[in-house]
Amino acid sequence: MSDTADRGEMAETDDRRSARRPSISDVAKLAGVSRQTVSNVLNGRTDYFSTQTEARVTAAVETLGYRPNRAAQTLRSRRSMQIGYHMSGEELDTVKGFTLSFLQALVKAAARRGYQILVFAHTDSGSHPVFTDLINRGNVDALIVSESQVDDPRVRLLAQSHFPFVSFGRLAPDLPQQWVDIDNAAGMATLMDHLVGKGYRRFAYIGAEGDEYWKRERLHGFTMGLERHGLTATGRDIFEGSGNAIREQARRVLSRRNRPDAVVTSSDYIAAIVVNVCHALGLQVGRDIAVTGFDGGAMGLITEPTITSVRIPVEKIAGELIDRCQAEIGGGPTGRPGVVIPTEILHGGSA
Amino acid sequence: MSDTADRGEMAETDDRRSARRPSISDVAKLAGVSRQTVSNVLNGRTDYFSTQTEARVTAAVETLGYRPNRAAQTLRSRRSMQIGYHMSGEELDTVKGFTLSFLQALVKAAARRGYQILVFAHTDSGSHPVFTDLINRGNVDALIVSESQVDDPRVRLLAQSHFPFVSFGRLAPDLPQQWVDIDNAAGMATLMDHLVGKGYRRFAYIGAEGDEYWKRERLHGFTMGLERHGLTATGRDIFEGSGNAIREQARRVLSRRNRPDAVVTSSDYIAAIVVNVCHALGLQVGRDIAVTGFDGGAMGLITEPTITSVRIPVEKIAGELIDRCQAEIGGGPTGRPGVVIPTEILHGGSA
Repeated sequence: MSDTADRGEMAETDDRRSARRPSISDVAKLAGVSRQTVSNVLNGRTDYFSTQTEARVTAAVETLGYRPNRAAQTLRSRRSMQIGYHMSGEELDTVKGFTLSFLQALVKAAARRGYQILVFAHTDSGSHPVFTDLINRGNVDALIVSESQVDDPRVRLLAQSHFPFVSFGRLAPDLPQQWVDIDNAAGMATLMDHLVGKGYRRFAYIGAEGDEYWKRERLHGFTMGLERHGLTATGRDIFEGSGNAIREQARRVLSRRNRPDAVVTSSDYIAAIVVNVCHALGLQVGRDIAVTGFDGGAMGLITEPTITSVRIPVEKIAGELIDRCQAEIGGGPTGRPGVVIPTEILHGGSA
Repeated sequence: MSDTADRGEMAETDDRRSARRPSISDVAKLAGVSRQTVSNVLNGRTDYFSTQTEARVTAAVETLGYRPNRAAQTLRSRRSMQIGYHMSGEELDTVKGFTLSFLQALVKAAARRGYQILVFAHTDSGSHPVFTDLINRGNVDALIVSESQVDDPRVRLLAQSHFPFVSFGRLAPDLPQQWVDIDNAAGMATLMDHLVGKGYRRFAYIGAEGDEYWKRERLHGFTMGLERHGLTATGRDIFEGSGNAIREQARRVLSRRNRPDAVVTSSDYIAAIVVNVCHALGLQVGRDIAVTGFDGGAMGLITEPTITSVRIPVEKIAGELIDRCQAEIGGGPTGRPGVVIPTEILHGGSA
């Protein structure tokens, strides 16, 4: 048995006067297990129950429509009902549709569960002081980081401090596997299958520069996709850059006599720039040339035609991040493995 | 004299051991005024000092390089060092570059002053409960609202609760004038002067639909701009809509035999869509047709050519919002009038 008390849920069992609202005891009775077991299942402490037990508890929760009483939980636990979100690097300095979609999804997912998001940034002295300060002040119940560096110093600090956290982006094997991510390479390779299936054969790649693993993985998915169809791309067909260099590369590649018939990019933002360069060169996107993105948000709806993309399901990711925070807040480290949320292909007119 | 104590700043005067760091007493001595007067000036309590006094104090602050000691202030005042930001409506549901630029600027401006931003949204039951909850829990020192409804019920609640706040967007005259805004009509009219000066004469307008005053004002600036140059636009040349209707209107207007030579829009987002429709119709933007936006952020850099726009100075706005919050947190209602931050024309290739 776990010795971690679930104050909110335990407290609720005393509330027998409210006949309408099912309690954790009702769930335990219907499932034929103890209240502690119900709590373990609800908080995802997977070491403490079997798959069969989980199924019985889940069925009972659904049958009764049981919901933990958040208000009572807050009152008794003195939780802040705030989850910190660290905004750093590109998220803080570059205007991209994905960042906003993700933040919106996070704020909404948190609000649905009674939480608010404390957005913080560090100024010049590195992220360590602001994390230490947040942990010490106790004004957030958990922290979410994104733009994971895999072996991430922020996460190392959080793990050492035994502070609840979740990372959007995978983590090194020796860190707690509290992460939610997508498979960038698989998503991109599936898009390549789709493009090859539609008859495209001469590919170029334009990606965002930087050492982040997701940038490397998207490029890896591109070359992997080529290889499994017996295709290749030469060095001059693969480019990573930023700002105006992206526009220049698009012009260069698309002005060649033997130009590619498909330009694959690492984001909808870059894809939108490439579509605009195509227009300026008199190429009809979707007919003369295919252009694809990665993200699948509102940015891809600006262009004419709209952008075919690998969609990152921000709502599911945000929901999973908040759920995992809640599980750790409620019951300490869950020991759960990281989770990969599947991407999907969003069909626009550009490919 | 004000009876509001400035705990942080007063506390600092005791710190005489640190010879390097100028104190509020040093400022008072150099300016030849009392410490309370320095505090009044720093906290913007305009009723308590003259313009001459303000100038003397400001000069002394600059000469000495005086900065209030934030860390001491927090420790002694038990402030949360959190400022709440209400994300609602379009900000929560629509992906626009401006929203993200503004949020980034807000998080940065707050971080520079030692504050963090608590982003909150309301779910289905209206904004009242979440505001009441925040005021009662005391986990934010001030609140910022945007998307002002002018006679804004959120602000009415905050004013009645005597809770420090600032609005991005003007407020009704009977509410405290704690607001920062731009002049949408003047900004747009100045852009019209520029376009007429460049020789454009046949104008169409495509705006975002909705009753918000800033949408009405941008359209008003457009018609005002036409009128002062003796030009007119008929009903079919003025359109407000959303989503795909914007794209369809752009196609309709630009396919007419007697098409306009300039399409003025209410946002860079709409302008980017219009530029893309122009491309699809074989029109060369900046030569065959002018297209303008409103915002002046990263969205306008996607298109080819880039978008000529009315730039909203988000950094200045965010800085002013946080400064005004700090003044109210430190010294209660300042009674200051609202402030209008000037816009500027951003010259892209599209007009």
